Amino acid sequence: MDYASTTPILPEVLSAMLKFSGNSFANPSSIYLEGLEAKKALASAREKVAGILQVKPSEIIFTSGGTESDNLAILGLAPAMKKDGRIHIITTAIEHPAVLEPLKRLEEEGFEISYLPVSEKGIVEIKEVEKAVRPETGLISVMQANNEIGAVQPIRQIGLLLKNLREKNESKWPLFHTDSSQAANYLDVSPNAFGVDLMTLDGCKIYGPKGMGMLFVKRDTPLFPVILGGGQEGGLRSGTENPSAALGFAEALYMAARDRKSESERLRALRDRFFFRIEKELPELRINGDKKLRLPNNINVCLSAVRSKNMPNDGARGEFAVLQMDNLGIACASVTACRGAKGYYSHVMEAIGRPECASSSLRFTMGRGTTKGDVDRAVEALKKIVRG
Amino acid sequence: MDYASTTPILPEVLSAMLKFSGNSFANPSSIYLEGLEAKKALASAREKVAGILQVKPSEIIFTSGGTESDNLAILGLAPAMKKDGRIHIITTAIEHPAVLEPLKRLEEEGFEISYLPVSEKGIVEIKEVEKAVRPETGLISVMQANNEIGAVQPIRQIGLLLKNLREKNESKWPLFHTDSSQAANYLDVSPNAFGVDLMTLDGCKIYGPKGMGMLFVKRDTPLFPVILGGGQEGGLRSGTENPSAALGFAEALYMAARDRKSESERLRALRDRFFFRIEKELPELRINGDKKLRLPNNINVCLSAVRSKNMPNDGARGEFAVLQMDNLGIACASVTACRGAKGYYSHVMEAIGRPECASSSLRFTMGRGTTKGDVDRAVEALKKIVRG
Repeated sequence: MDYASTTPILPEVLSAMLKFSGNSFANPSSIYLEGLEAKKALASAREKVAGILQVKPSEIIFTSGGTESDNLAILGLAPAMKKDGRIHIITTAIEHPAVLEPLKRLEEEGFEISYLPVSEKGIVEIKEVEKAVRPETGLISVMQANNEIGAVQPIRQIGLLLKNLREKNESKWPLFHTDSSQAANYLDVSPNAFGVDLMTLDGCKIYGPKGMGMLFVKRDTPLFPVILGGGQEGGLRSGTENPSAALGFAEALYMAARDRKSESERLRALRDRFFFRIEKELPELRINGDKKLRLPNNINVCLSAVRSKNMPNDGARGEFAVLQMDNLGIACASVTACRGAKGYYSHVMEAIGRPECASSSLRFTMGRGTTKGDVDRAVEALKKIVRG
Repeated sequence: MDYASTTPILPEVLSAMLKFSGNSFANPSSIYLEGLEAKKALASAREKVAGILQVKPSEIIFTSGGTESDNLAILGLAPAMKKDGRIHIITTAIEHPAVLEPLKRLEEEGFEISYLPVSEKGIVEIKEVEKAVRPETGLISVMQANNEIGAVQPIRQIGLLLKNLREKNESKWPLFHTDSSQAANYLDVSPNAFGVDLMTLDGCKIYGPKGMGMLFVKRDTPLFPVILGGGQEGGLRSGTENPSAALGFAEALYMAARDRKSESERLRALRDRFFFRIEKELPELRINGDKKLRLPNNINVCLSAVRSKNMPNDGARGEFAVLQMDNLGIACASVTACRGAKGYYSHVMEAIGRPECASSSLRFTMGRGTTKGDVDRAVEALKKIVRG
């Protein structure tokens, strides 16, 4: 129950990938027959992705994953922002380290960053965005759904606010980036409906290949590359292209879109069952985030109020519980596999006003393989480690 | 005959990769059983690579490929160089764009770059390096073997020169980076024997997976990450790790080392046969680079002196010839799939004093699948397109 960390590759994805491997391996930048075939395979992956997202193929930049996409969006925009005196960036206190760390680097370079607070439900309020915008704001980066508590952010409203603002000021600034890595399995990911200029997706979060992600880059966005070289991906991302992984990513995104509604409904019922049982049978656990305004696959509970001799009282309660759950056959997470410099400490719990839960929470993220039986087993295991 | 562009995946590599896929897919940064298994798989790949290179496992940083490794080596060293006033960098005129483009960016940021000339054989002379070193030199980046003409550079001698220089000046500067992407199939790649601080390898050039490479980073090298986030790879390269591709890379490097001697001997004979036939049967072609001081799999000929009605006289002669060869069933390259901003124009030909060959050359790079019959077919095809 740790699908938010990474997902297995679907058989359909593997088969799409293996279609372009073995004897088909040429470099898509070569101009002979096999190279053109590789180029065509890459182009067809790009077109498929663009079709699903309803954007232009030239707006899809393949990268090595979600982290690189976030870095490209943020660090890649910095030169143009600097040039135009747009040295202010708005983000939230609950972004992924792949967004927060590049922003920290820009802060060292003289950029000013506003970290918006979130409600106790983990949601950023639109009026906070409105308040934070300044004449020198160049970028707003808000994730579509949080990776720890699954809180869904008002991306469309932020997009609309920024659109009106730009029109009023007759300016292309500020631009808008969203990291949709966690959202893509369950929510619409439509750059144009969102009004975003940049959108991150990660293959290994949507049952696609690891080492493959993408950044949507709206036409005319003044983006500079982060990785330089042979000028692949329209000059925005150099390095030998990977048609096989691109085809796998496209298939994974197709499957995500195809099954989005049914999987969301199925998992929402399981999530609600999980929460219902927790509230009834383990009231000493507190639910982190809102019970409904979250991804259908996300469950997050805080163990800080548990009184039990079995459990350490120090800051390692979450980690301890993960290991105990593991002993009982349940794979879950304390904060996130992508932890920051503070170790197993959740900046998200701090942001929702629960610092005491920052290293005492458990996250369960369900996926295609999760059944009602798994949910019940997880609850029983929780009871065992909490009650002894 | 374009193995320098990219290679097929060996069956042994694919099998090593598939060992860690399917049901094994967990995030190596997770702490439950499956996560630990993923972590172990990643660690075993790292140890295998370190064992082959005779370095410490912690000195191996997995990246998304050779281009990213070069970027990490160069851009990642910039902050420490700047801090220590080491704002001068030495490189050669024949590096890959993955080195030249990041250097160009540093030049824009105020760094001074010396581009060393090479001999007509395409080899940088040690006395040129000696002449170029200044008190403020922070980095020397010289590829082990050139991707276009296969010219092998005096890496050990440069390493020794720098070692002596550092000892004399009691300084850790200047550091030494080499891109060994093209060399690894045929030459020893031993960071410590070379005296390099940073060494690039690329999976898709050694019959390994695309989207997977590595950078050797000698302990205590003051490197900063280029891609920031969850702090994976010792903080030097964030993003969900890819154990399956890492295992594939390790197996590919193992196979390269195992077959290095035999494949080099086999291909050297084929290369010499190719050159012998060219000199005898097509004397109007000129060999680019030295006939012997080059990778055993590399053949590069210039068509500029060919007088033939079949061929265009403009700058597209190389590209034209690639397409003609393709029609005859031979896949080869004009300059390189990773071309710079100038399009199909070779900065390497210019550097060896043959600007007239910069868009009129053909590169054949052989590999594990190349036979004597292939060489003869290539020569016959060349004769057909040159003589009509």
